[in-house]
Amino acid sequence: MKKTVIAALSLLLCLPLAAGRIVTDTVKSKILSSDVVLNVYLPDGFGRNEAQRYPAIYLLHGLSDDYRAWRDKGQMQTVVDELISSGECVSVVIFMPNAGGPDTHNTWNGYFNMPGWNYEDFFFQEFMPEVEKKYKVVGDKEHRAVMGLSMGGGGSTVYCQRHPDLFSSCYAMSPWLDNESNSVGPGGEKDKRYYVCEAVKEHSALRFVEQADDETKAKLRTVKWFFDCGDDDFLFDQSVKMHQLMRGAWIHDELRIRNGVHNWEYWHQALRLALPFASRNFGK
Amino acid sequence: MKKTVIAALSLLLCLPLAAGRIVTDTVKSKILSSDVVLNVYLPDGFGRNEAQRYPAIYLLHGLSDDYRAWRDKGQMQTVVDELISSGECVSVVIFMPNAGGPDTHNTWNGYFNMPGWNYEDFFFQEFMPEVEKKYKVVGDKEHRAVMGLSMGGGGSTVYCQRHPDLFSSCYAMSPWLDNESNSVGPGGEKDKRYYVCEAVKEHSALRFVEQADDETKAKLRTVKWFFDCGDDDFLFDQSVKMHQLMRGAWIHDELRIRNGVHNWEYWHQALRLALPFASRNFGK
Amino acid sequence: MKKTVIAALSLLLCLPLAAGRIVTDTVKSKILSSDVVLNVYLPDGFGRNEAQRYPAIYLLHGLSDDYRAWRDKGQMQTVVDELISSGECVSVVIFMPNAGGPDTHNTWNGYFNMPGWNYEDFFFQEFMPEVEKKYKVVGDKEHRAVMGLSMGGGGSTVYCQRHPDLFSSCYAMSPWLDNESNSVGPGGEKDKRYYVCEAVKEHSALRFVEQADDETKAKLRTVKWFFDCGDDDFLFDQSVKMHQLMRGAWIHDELRIRNGVHNWEYWHQALRLALPFASRNFGK
Amino acid sequence: MKKTVIAALSLLLCLPLAAGRIVTDTVKSKILSSDVVLNVYLPDGFGRNEAQRYPAIYLLHGLSDDYRAWRDKGQMQTVVDELISSGECVSVVIFMPNAGGPDTHNTWNGYFNMPGWNYEDFFFQEFMPEVEKKYKVVGDKEHRAVMGLSMGGGGSTVYCQRHPDLFSSCYAMSPWLDNESNSVGPGGEKDKRYYVCEAVKEHSALRFVEQADDETKAKLRTVKWFFDCGDDDFLFDQSVKMHQLMRGAWIHDELRIRNGVHNWEYWHQALRLALPFASRNFGK
Repeated sequence: MKKTVIAALSLLLCLPLAAGRIVTDTVKSKILSSDVVLNVYLPDGFGRNEAQRYPAIYLLHGLSDDYRAWRDKGQMQTVVDELISSGECVSVVIFMPNAGGPDTHNTWNGYFNMPGWNYEDFFFQEFMPEVEKKYKVVGDKEHRAVMGLSMGGGGSTVYCQRHPDLFSSCYAMSPWLDNESNSVGPGGEKDKRYYVCEAVKEHSALRFVEQADDETKAKLRTVKWFFDCGDDDFLFDQSVKMHQLMRGAWIHDELRIRNGVHNWEYWHQALRLALPFASRNFGK
Repeated sequence: MKKTVIAALSLLLCLPLAAGRIVTDTVKSKILSSDVVLNVYLPDGFGRNEAQRYPAIYLLHGLSDDYRAWRDKGQMQTVVDELISSGECVSVVIFMPNAGGPDTHNTWNGYFNMPGWNYEDFFFQEFMPEVEKKYKVVGDKEHRAVMGLSMGGGGSTVYCQRHPDLFSSCYAMSPWLDNESNSVGPGGEKDKRYYVCEAVKEHSALRFVEQADDETKAKLRTVKWFFDCGDDDFLFDQSVKMHQLMRGAWIHDELRIRNGVHNWEYWHQALRLALPFASRNFGK
Repeated sequence: MKKTVIAALSLLLCLPLAAGRIVTDTVKSKILSSDVVLNVYLPDGFGRNEAQRYPAIYLLHGLSDDYRAWRDKGQMQTVVDELISSGECVSVVIFMPNAGGPDTHNTWNGYFNMPGWNYEDFFFQEFMPEVEKKYKVVGDKEHRAVMGLSMGGGGSTVYCQRHPDLFSSCYAMSPWLDNESNSVGPGGEKDKRYYVCEAVKEHSALRFVEQADDETKAKLRTVKWFFDCGDDDFLFDQSVKMHQLMRGAWIHDELRIRNGVHNWEYWHQALRLALPFASRNFGK
Repeated sequence: MKKTVIAALSLLLCLPLAAGRIVTDTVKSKILSSDVVLNVYLPDGFGRNEAQRYPAIYLLHGLSDDYRAWRDKGQMQTVVDELISSGECVSVVIFMPNAGGPDTHNTWNGYFNMPGWNYEDFFFQEFMPEVEKKYKVVGDKEHRAVMGLSMGGGGSTVYCQRHPDLFSSCYAMSPWLDNESNSVGPGGEKDKRYYVCEAVKEHSALRFVEQADDETKAKLRTVKWFFDCGDDDFLFDQSVKMHQLMRGAWIHDELRIRNGVHNWEYWHQALRLALPFASRNFGK
C-alpha cells in the first residue's frame, strides 16, 4: 500500500509541521557600546508576500540565561509551530533578544537601565525600531505583546508598566517583580549581579502599582495582564501580591497558579497558554 | 530580607524538584551477541532503603532513535520528577533500553525477533530479569507497565499482546501497529530497514486482535490499554483501527486523538498522561 | 474587616460574573406553518451601545431535545460568561433555535427539509434573517459560526457544507453525520422519526465529502472545521470517517477524541473548546 | 446496518455510562434533636458482592445550600461515573450530608459546633459511624477523604485539622477558612447566620496552622492537602494565605489558582481534579 511506504519513509524523517524557522541576528547598539545577539522566530510563509506585516511578540529569557534559552531549553519552536498550525495563535514574529549570560557576577544581566548597561534605552530606542522594520512587523500597540520568564517576566511587566502605549498584552511567567535584598558580595563588592538586583529593586513592579495615580492606572488598564506561577516556585509570593495589588487598583488581570517550580517544564507549558493569550488580544 | 537573598541565589541555580536521576548502564546479551545500553530513571530516594522495591515502567523509543531519545529529546526527567512530586505518579523505576539507531539501513532497529536480531527473546529472557533484579523492582504483572512512541508504541502493544501476564498496562503513543509495504530497496536489497518493516508486518498488532480467540481475548482484558495519537499524525489510521478492533472484541481500551503530529512535542505531552495512567493501574 | 463583611454577604448571594442573559423568543414561520421558539444568549452590555453589532453563533440541540436543552442541561450560560470574561471568547450573540422535541415518533425533529417540515428553508430564509436583524448581528460569513451536538452536530456540518459562504467555522460535537438504517417501524409505519432518519441519510455529510468536486472542495476549505467525539460514543466511527475523508480531500479539519460517551458532561466540556475555536476564527 | 439501528435507538435513549446511582437517606440525630438528610452516591456494582468494602468520600456543600446541591447544581454524578469508568477514580461511596439551607438567617448552617447546633459532634459521633456501616465502607484513614466547596471547603479543612487520624486527604474548593466580621444584624440581633459566622471565626483554619505546635504539624503532614480557588473569587486571599502558612510550617500542600469565580462552573471542574486526587491518595 502506497500510504504505508510513505509512512515508513516518514518514520525515518519525522517530518515536522508546516514549520517556521529561527534565525540568529545581531543588532549594533551605540547605547550599550556592543552588539546584541537575538534569535527570531519567523512563521511559515514569512517573506513570501512582500507586503504582509506580522504582529510581534518579545519573548524574554531569565537571569543567567541568554538569547538561546527559549530556543534550546524551552523548545519554543515546536510549541509555536503547533499553535499556529491549529489556529490557536496567529502567524507572528517572535523576538528573543539577549539580555544576560551564565556568569551573573561578570556578565551583564537585566532589562533595565543600570550604570554601564542602559538596556531599557537600548531596547526601545535601538532594538525595537530596527528589528520591527527589518522583520516586517505591523508595529503598533495592538499588534505587539511581551512575555518572559523569571527576570524576563519582571522585565515584561515593567516594560508594560512604563510603556503601556506600546503593548497590547503582557504574560509574566514565574516573574521576578521585586527585590529587597542587599546584593553586595561577602566583601562588599558591587559586581554585575549586584547591579541587576539593585535594578530590579528600583524598578519594583509591585511598588509601581501601589504608587500608581489615577492617570497611570487608566493607562495600565489598556494592557491585558497575565501572571502565571508555580505553587512551589520560590517567587510565588510576588505573583500573588501583584494580583492583589492589581485587583486593589481595579486593574483587571489574570492569575494562574499551576503545579510546579521554577523550571523549564513550567515555562514550556506556560508558553502553550501565553501564545493564545497574546494572540487573542492582538487588534483585529 | 533573607528570603530574597535565597531567591537571588536560586535564580542563579534554578534548583530542580526533589529529583530523581538517570544512569546509563549496559546489559551483555548472548542472544544478540552484543552489549545493549540503557538509561534508567531512578526516583528520589532510590537505594536509601535497602528493602524497598519499586514498580517498573519500560519506556520505548522509536525507529532511528536510541536509548538516549527519551532523556534528551523527550526531556522525560522533568516530567517524571514533577508527576512523582505531586503524587500523580508513584515512585517508579523507568527503563529505557536501546533498540535502534539513526542509520536504519545499517543499524538494527526493532523490538521483535528478526533474522540476526532476536530482540524480543533478549528483552524477556536476558534484559528484563537482569535489570529488574539489579534495580530493585517488585517484578510482577501488577507492578510493571510498558509504554513507548511510534515503533516503541507498537512494541509496547505487541509485548502486552504476547505477554499479557507480565504487564498491568500499555500506553502506546502514535504507535506503529502494522506495516503492509514491501520494504526492499530500489535494487531489491534487504537491509536492516527491510527487516524491521517485515517484523512489524509479521507482528501486526491489528491482525493479532482480529485473529484472537476467546482465550486470548480473555487474557488481553487483563491489561489496561491506552492509544494516543495526533489528528495529523501519518499513523492516525492505525490507532483508530486498533480502537475499533478492540471494541469489536469487547476488550476495553482508551483512545485519545489530540492535536498534533508525529513529533516530540506530542510525546512530551503524552508522557504527562501516560505516567498517571500506568501509576493508577499498578497493583495496590 | 469590611472585606469579610462583603465576603459573608457574597456567600449568601453567590454573585455570578459580569453576566450575559438568556431570553426566550418566537419566530413566526410561514414555511413551517408554525411558530418556532428559541433561546438567545445576549452578552453583558448588549443593547447599551445602539450601534454595536455582534458576531453570531448558532448552537444546535440534538434529537429528542429542544431549544431549552443547551440552557438547562448544558448549563451553557456559565461557560459562555466565563469565557467571555477571560477573553477566550469575544462578546457574541448565541441563537438556540427549536428543531425537535422529546417524542421523536410524533414530534418533528431535524435541521433538514423533509416532507411537511422544510426546516432548512425556514432556517436560512426566515429564521436567520429575522433574528440577526433583531439581535444586532454583524451578519456576514466572517462573523457567523455554527455548532451543535449529535443531530445538531450533523446539522452544523451539513449547513456549512451546503452554505460555506455563510459560516466561518463549524464545531460538531459527537455528530450524527450519516444514517444507513431502514427506520420504518415494526409495522412498516413512517412516523416523524422515520423522516428524520431518512433526512440524515439523504443529507449524509460523509457522502457529501466523498462526492465533492474540485469547486465544492475549494469552498469547503473556506470554513474552519472541528470534529469532537468521545472514544466510547456510539457515533465514534462517523467522526473518524469524516476526518479521513476530509484529509483525503485535502480539506483541513481538526479532530479530537476525548474520553467520554454521548452525554451532557461531554458536551459541556466541548463547549469550553468550541467557543474559543469559533471566536478565534471570527474575522478581525 | 444493525449498528446504525442501535445508534438510532441510542440517540433517543442517550444511555449513560455504566452508572452509579444516588440514593437519599436520613440519619436520626440525638445530638441535633432532628433528622439529617443526605444523598449517597453508590458506584456501579454496589451491593453485588456482599463482602466488598469501598473507600468513602465526604462531599460537603456550601452556605445556603443543602444536601441536594452537589447532585442537582453540581451535576456530580456524570463526573463521578466518567472518572470511575476511565479509572481516574476508584469505585467509591460518596456521602453528601445536609448542613444548611437557603434561609441563612433562620436555618442552621455549618459544620462546626455552635450553640444549639453541635454539628461536628453529630458528624463524627453519629453520622459517620452509621453511614459507614450501612454503606459498606472500609472505614479507616487510608480509605477516607473529605472535600467540599466554600463553607464546605472550610469544613473539610477544619475536619482534617482536628481529626487528621481520620482522613487521608482533603480537597478544599474556594474554601471559607476564616471570618473576621462582626456578623450581628443591623439591630444587633444574633440569628443563625450570626452563629455560623462566629463558628467559622472560632474555627479559623488559618489560625490553626499559625498556632500549631510541632506535634500537631507532624499530624497534619499525614494528610494530603489541596486548595483550589478562582483568581476572581472573593475568598481568593484565604486560599493563598493558607498555602503560605502551610509552606511556612513545612506542611506540604497543593495550591491551584484557576480561572474563575465563586460558582458551580468552578466547582464542577474542581470535582474533576478532586476525585482523582482523593483516589490516588487512598491506601493501596
